[in-house]
Amino acid sequence: MALIVQKYGGTSVGNVERIKNVAAKVKAQWSQGHRVVVVVSARSGVTNELVARAKALSSLPEEREMDVLLATGEQETIALTVMALHAIGVPAVSRTGAQAGIVTDDRHTRARIVRITGGDLLARLDEGKVVVVAGFQGATESGEVTTLGRGGSDLTAIAVAASIKADLCQIYTDVDGVYTADPRVVLDARKLPALSHEEMLELASSGSKVMQARSVEFAQKHNVTFEVRSSFNDNPGTLIKSMDKTLEDAAVAGVALDRSQTRVTVGDLPDRPDAVAALFADLGDAGLSVDMIIKNLGKDGKANLTFSVNTDAYAKAEKVIAETLRRLGSGTVRSAGEVAKLSVVGVGMISHSGVAATLFKALASVGVNSDLITTSEIKISVALDPAKADEAVRAVHAAFGLGK
Amino acid sequence: MALIVQKYGGTSVGNVERIKNVAAKVKAQWSQGHRVVVVVSARSGVTNELVARAKALSSLPEEREMDVLLATGEQETIALTVMALHAIGVPAVSRTGAQAGIVTDDRHTRARIVRITGGDLLARLDEGKVVVVAGFQGATESGEVTTLGRGGSDLTAIAVAASIKADLCQIYTDVDGVYTADPRVVLDARKLPALSHEEMLELASSGSKVMQARSVEFAQKHNVTFEVRSSFNDNPGTLIKSMDKTLEDAAVAGVALDRSQTRVTVGDLPDRPDAVAALFADLGDAGLSVDMIIKNLGKDGKANLTFSVNTDAYAKAEKVIAETLRRLGSGTVRSAGEVAKLSVVGVGMISHSGVAATLFKALASVGVNSDLITTSEIKISVALDPAKADEAVRAVHAAFGLGK
Repeated sequence: MALIVQKYGGTSVGNVERIKNVAAKVKAQWSQGHRVVVVVSARSGVTNELVARAKALSSLPEEREMDVLLATGEQETIALTVMALHAIGVPAVSRTGAQAGIVTDDRHTRARIVRITGGDLLARLDEGKVVVVAGFQGATESGEVTTLGRGGSDLTAIAVAASIKADLCQIYTDVDGVYTADPRVVLDARKLPALSHEEMLELASSGSKVMQARSVEFAQKHNVTFEVRSSFNDNPGTLIKSMDKTLEDAAVAGVALDRSQTRVTVGDLPDRPDAVAALFADLGDAGLSVDMIIKNLGKDGKANLTFSVNTDAYAKAEKVIAETLRRLGSGTVRSAGEVAKLSVVGVGMISHSGVAATLFKALASVGVNSDLITTSEIKISVALDPAKADEAVRAVHAAFGLGK
Repeated sequence: MALIVQKYGGTSVGNVERIKNVAAKVKAQWSQGHRVVVVVSARSGVTNELVARAKALSSLPEEREMDVLLATGEQETIALTVMALHAIGVPAVSRTGAQAGIVTDDRHTRARIVRITGGDLLARLDEGKVVVVAGFQGATESGEVTTLGRGGSDLTAIAVAASIKADLCQIYTDVDGVYTADPRVVLDARKLPALSHEEMLELASSGSKVMQARSVEFAQKHNVTFEVRSSFNDNPGTLIKSMDKTLEDAAVAGVALDRSQTRVTVGDLPDRPDAVAALFADLGDAGLSVDMIIKNLGKDGKANLTFSVNTDAYAKAEKVIAETLRRLGSGTVRSAGEVAKLSVVGVGMISHSGVAATLFKALASVGVNSDLITTSEIKISVALDPAKADEAVRAVHAAFGLGK
């Protein structure tokens, strides 16, 4: 008999019928004698409605009150889900984030979990009850309501699983697992039965929309095994667990594509280590992450720096950089247009040589020659022309033999 | 500089525009240097929507989860109200019932307040902030969400006022005070400038829809002075305060009418004190209150009992009585049709004689002769034919000289 955490997102609990469907899925596990904790999001659409009402009252609503407002969304879902479980004979009880002991810092709208007590979850499970926990929310030590920001409900599920030492954490979503590449781009893309946390993390930060990197990081840190699977069918999903030697058989697990990067060029930067450091420190302080950096020495002791940022973050990055350059007394910043980022990810890269060679050969075969490249132990990313991205993904996917 | 609690009901915060209107009213007080706590209900309609969703999932939703669900309504309103205050430059912070330290028993959906700590309300007020508290809700000692049932937001306001020793508690509603009679029935009905708690209590339990009796009782017990006034104009309302000698000048303060009473006849009851006691004890245990009782001795040592109950409660009362009679081994129960209950209320009755005489003379003048009568120190109620009720109220109102 296992201890299982199941997480259902906003689409999965989007209306009364879907909540009934979730209750039936939960009952299927509970009937087999498993102890089940369910984490739910707000019904899809609810958050947008609440935000619209807030914006009608204030152009810049205070983040503390935004959290009080938004937290009502999941609170509604937990009560409705418990009612649906009761209606089919499953004993159940709801818990808000605060009641489940999810303690966060006070960075409202994007709070970080500082500890999780689990509240009385295990005691309620021992009574034979299913416990339904509100995702996305927590409370500070002093009892202020907080929300966890994007991907917050996944994080709640994984944090709850860690705190009660669950055997498995199932993330139910609208895709049925993690694929070797986006199936809409690569027709013979294959669902991966298993992945390491490290690979999932690289995929998450490489444009795979399945999960936010922070939830994967939390799972890796606390060694939580989780499964990404569909709430609309009963197919097995993809299991994400700690790195395993047997996973190394394949050099590359998958190919990810992030279409929303912008290439930033900083010219005439003083060519001193402290100048480059100041630039990246200021970007980091503003919460902006950069990728795929190259530096060229220019004339007159000046340097040119090129890197990529998320397109959404470009306006903010440009503002931060302009301020840094003003302080340094030299330099220009401009966008050099949008790029796509293609990444190949796999723990097998650590031991297999030749991954880079296969990658660049495949890219060359479709006429792609990238100058922006970044590597980690288990990932190689290249920037390329968005117009060539789909063709490149298909070539790379085939070159590594990832298809069916 | 006064410490003021203001309560706004669901209609007053029914949409974004009305919430802005509430914020403006609050600002008017705050700008004068007063410290202000605002208690708000859920937007009108929200509770019905939530109940509809619950009913779609379960024919009899668990009361604990119903509370978790319904409490989201006021939580939304507190956040929106604070945002509206911020938008017009008023520093403010929200508090849920639990955060405001409203501790209740665990009778979900109709919890009783057991104590109120006030949380950090005074500390926040001292910072110059307006504090916006969710009405209608609290939490048990162990942190379960509860709601207070009908009239719960009024009760929250009065309880908060008691705990922080407010100078005044203003109940903003859709009527602009307490009248000598229903202005829709009696054209020259007059708004009362002031009333005692006792009079307000008798009016509340005599069919005046202005406030629930439990809130008035709480105010009386904790000596909270409150004002009933309109949220749609700036007219002064009616002040309810502890009994005052000067109030005794008028024998009668007002005439109330409750149209929703049903007359119950219990026949062939064993004429023993324990039989009557058992009947009323069983009704009391079922939470049913009866009024205007008369007993007639029948034949063969049997008695007939007639009394009134709220029409809404008749079906339940009949079931309870049938069970009692089955246990007693004798008796029948039936409805003798709907009656209206007319009450005259006034602290002056204690010292003024002749109130009953004036009342019955006025009733006789319109052809009303009642056999069901009940009296308290400050109230006389009579049951009468609903078809004659309006005419009777006008005659009594005039006989006591209550008009303009």
